[in-house]
Amino acid sequence: MNAGAAFALSRPLDGPAEVRHAARAGRLRGQTSGLAPGFVQANLAILPSDVAADFLRFCQRNPKPCPLIGMSEPGDPMLPDLGADLDIRTDVPRYRVWRDGELAEEVDDIRDLWRDDLTAFLIGCSFSFEEALLADDVPVRHIAEGRNVPMYRTTIPTAPAGPFHGPLVVSMRPLKAADAIRAVQITSRLPAVHGAPVHLGDPSLIGIRDITAPDYGEAVRVEPDELPVFWACGVTPQSVIAAAKPPFAITHAPGCMLVTDLKNTRLSIL
Amino acid sequence: MNAGAAFALSRPLDGPAEVRHAARAGRLRGQTSGLAPGFVQANLAILPSDVAADFLRFCQRNPKPCPLIGMSEPGDPMLPDLGADLDIRTDVPRYRVWRDGELAEEVDDIRDLWRDDLTAFLIGCSFSFEEALLADDVPVRHIAEGRNVPMYRTTIPTAPAGPFHGPLVVSMRPLKAADAIRAVQITSRLPAVHGAPVHLGDPSLIGIRDITAPDYGEAVRVEPDELPVFWACGVTPQSVIAAAKPPFAITHAPGCMLVTDLKNTRLSIL
Repeated sequence: MNAGAAFALSRPLDGPAEVRHAARAGRLRGQTSGLAPGFVQANLAILPSDVAADFLRFCQRNPKPCPLIGMSEPGDPMLPDLGADLDIRTDVPRYRVWRDGELAEEVDDIRDLWRDDLTAFLIGCSFSFEEALLADDVPVRHIAEGRNVPMYRTTIPTAPAGPFHGPLVVSMRPLKAADAIRAVQITSRLPAVHGAPVHLGDPSLIGIRDITAPDYGEAVRVEPDELPVFWACGVTPQSVIAAAKPPFAITHAPGCMLVTDLKNTRLSIL
Repeated sequence: MNAGAAFALSRPLDGPAEVRHAARAGRLRGQTSGLAPGFVQANLAILPSDVAADFLRFCQRNPKPCPLIGMSEPGDPMLPDLGADLDIRTDVPRYRVWRDGELAEEVDDIRDLWRDDLTAFLIGCSFSFEEALLADDVPVRHIAEGRNVPMYRTTIPTAPAGPFHGPLVVSMRPLKAADAIRAVQITSRLPAVHGAPVHLGDPSLIGIRDITAPDYGEAVRVEPDELPVFWACGVTPQSVIAAAKPPFAITHAPGCMLVTDLKNTRLSIL
């Protein structure tokens, strides 16, 4: 870890350590989509010890929205399993601080907020499976349209744990049927980043009234010969934390993910 | 093979050799659905040598409708790789004889029709993947309704080979979205019996005008919360042979399959 700076210099410009160091140095404050292609990006949730055990159980019970790819020791901001020299207090481009379930502020680093009773949870992100879809020539509409993926609250319940409960949030990608079938195959191999879709076809069957009005992200075009295909989404834990209203929590800001040293291709179980 | 009779006696009543011996002895003249559970059943096509090479190439080019699980030596009616003592001239309950593409007769055995220039092709059948679906609690409507599966000619072309060409024929099973996703996973593991679906959702996109009027088999109920899911079907080779109008051909009669000694579970590639 003390060789971090030298390590970064030996990396290509789009390597994961370089992205983290740019965030740490204040040179990167925005979204990480498209940065460090080939490397796993992760959703972040940081919780105090009085609810961390419940949240860990929530992830265990809800692996599709909350596939846990790493967590810190309580009070330790370093995550060596996810990246060389990785400091969770500085290496995410932008953080959100939550107090009693309300967004209190957005900040660029959380060194001042770090405490000995905090645990960081890193949860798989759909960027990894979108890369796998595109590599197999399955088109991803929101990327083609240059938008954020549309996300929807559903009527599908999550399995509760302690104070954490609430509906599943899903992301949607419109696909022709043959591509939808191929997408099931591709994403089934990637359970660490949400795995297979949870639904396809009629949105009303999972409580989505208007596909053109997502609850998060931006709407995308759905052609008449396409099916909307829905995956469990990493926004679910943020939505569940907001509903549980813990006195204190920190997450990444939307789209500003932690970039890890794990390779997307190594997530495939087959 | 000379131990065939003794072998049959050592099998349970629903074993594959027993089914074949019942067909051979004239005690079984009807459908084989549900017989010898756990064992692979196969579609049969027998063709003379002047078109057999083209048909083999057709199967190679169209593995989803025509997954070849075995073929005979030219002129040899025994298929030891598919079953002990298996004689393709007697071991299928009922055969169809085709002359110039027209159904000429249905017969109980083809010993009188066998020739030195005939090759038998055995093609995987959806019974195997239906067993896998049911084992995983994915319901199969036509089985629940006690009907033959509905099948449809589509506008999806097959890849031609010599005189063999024509549209893909598909079978349809209505499923709720979550079961359809699970069915893609289950049948993707079984490429030797048609593999993953070729389409799901809107039937008109593959040229099916009326889902209640199948071209073969019987219509089944499709509930409002279900998607029709379509798999490439082993009727495709029969339809293609009828269109190619070879002077002579023999197939199994619908539903009267060859029961092999291969286990369904051994077809799974994962």
